[in-house]
Amino acid sequence: MSAPPAPQDGFAVILVEPQLGENIGMVARAMWNCGLSDLRLVNPRDGWPSQAAIDASAGAVPPIEAARLFPSVDAAMADLDLVFASSDRVRDLQSRVLRPEAAAREMRARAVQGGKAGVLFGPERTGLSNDDVARANGLIQIPANAAFTSLNLAQAVLLIGFDWWRAGMDGPAEWIARGDTEPATKAEVENLYARLVAGLEAGGFFRSPKLKPTTLRNLRALLERAGLSAQETRTLQGVVSALRRAPPAEDAAARDRD
Amino acid sequence: MSAPPAPQDGFAVILVEPQLGENIGMVARAMWNCGLSDLRLVNPRDGWPSQAAIDASAGAVPPIEAARLFPSVDAAMADLDLVFASSDRVRDLQSRVLRPEAAAREMRARAVQGGKAGVLFGPERTGLSNDDVARANGLIQIPANAAFTSLNLAQAVLLIGFDWWRAGMDGPAEWIARGDTEPATKAEVENLYARLVAGLEAGGFFRSPKLKPTTLRNLRALLERAGLSAQETRTLQGVVSALRRAPPAEDAAARDRD
Repeated sequence: MSAPPAPQDGFAVILVEPQLGENIGMVARAMWNCGLSDLRLVNPRDGWPSQAAIDASAGAVPPIEAARLFPSVDAAMADLDLVFASSDRVRDLQSRVLRPEAAAREMRARAVQGGKAGVLFGPERTGLSNDDVARANGLIQIPANAAFTSLNLAQAVLLIGFDWWRAGMDGPAEWIARGDTEPATKAEVENLYARLVAGLEAGGFFRSPKLKPTTLRNLRALLERAGLSAQETRTLQGVVSALRRAPPAEDAAARDRD
Repeated sequence: MSAPPAPQDGFAVILVEPQLGENIGMVARAMWNCGLSDLRLVNPRDGWPSQAAIDASAGAVPPIEAARLFPSVDAAMADLDLVFASSDRVRDLQSRVLRPEAAAREMRARAVQGGKAGVLFGPERTGLSNDDVARANGLIQIPANAAFTSLNLAQAVLLIGFDWWRAGMDGPAEWIARGDTEPATKAEVENLYARLVAGLEAGGFFRSPKLKPTTLRNLRALLERAGLSAQETRTLQGVVSALRRAPPAEDAAARDRD
């Protein structure tokens, strides 16, 4: 349940004139975290292959090995049929604007129809030109804190890539990890509850007969809410027994006298 | 519509024994991208304050200035009432496991009730100890590519932080950015369509009377699908007129003869 599905054919990551090899490597790392390997480089300033990129990729081999060089943005996206441009600037250009999760859904939907998508990322300092943005089917805008939108290349790739990756996952968003244990049955919880109540009766816990029903209900609700395993009910049975064997604590005895 | 809401009081980011100041700075940057500023450091190896952290924070001042030192995990989370542990390892520990989006929703829900949440992140190499994980209300597991789960500290903070940030946003996940333009009315699109069809009639475009109704429907659908602005309908009116004034192209004339 906790294991994500195997990597599948994802969208192409197109870096337009990236400057530092280190950034290309960090992009490769973010890509492979998200099961993406189709890395395309348009005129990287420091050339390709790049030792700096390999060093920064932290072992993300597939995108580094699959990386291809292209002489132009048009050439890099010629085989794709859905291309978004990652940009946080508003353009003087009528354009679809999508948050990462919406772009992820659309790329997944296109893949189901046999299509192939890509995302353009601009140079580190300047971002994409308006000419490049006009070639895309829409803009992906990552809605970061308006007071601080500065995202580096790898962070932008990670946020868009992770939404894409997650959009292809099945399974719940929350579960209980149990290791080797089994969840307790209702009867096991009830046995524990009975043992606990017997001990509390014996210890003079219920001083007010009027409040006793409410206290009992709250104790039972607490035990249910905890989502106990079968093993834990046995452990807690032992806890109750051990406490009954222990002599009264000094401070408790003092408090009881008040 | 595209501007995110102002930063609001978010969850505390607790770094347990972080090693490199640079990583603390990159965490601060990722935090402030997501409007988070409550940074707590438990025994940072290289001390605090850290010039390396400031250098790596790319101007994310608020988390750097708000950062506080704590001598223990317990002290760092004493005022919080909901704490998750970020971990990609499966533990021999019964525990709630949440994907980032589920944890984000729960932290938002707790904040509505006046509570205060936090997330523990372990040291770069080893991650959190089982003792620290057992102190948390649940585990956040980032479901990265199973073949390559290596996420650095700042990436983990970014993915969890961004889901938290996004969970507090209103507004659509997709829209049309129009700049100064207004969307075209139906009448404006219809005028353009009529002008286009008149030109096509004059140019002998409809050779098969049988196919003409389908072709007309497809042209109309294409114009509607494009989501034209009022200005664009006027531009395209001019495009049609200009094409009618232009002499027939050589290759088109040749093709027409076949």
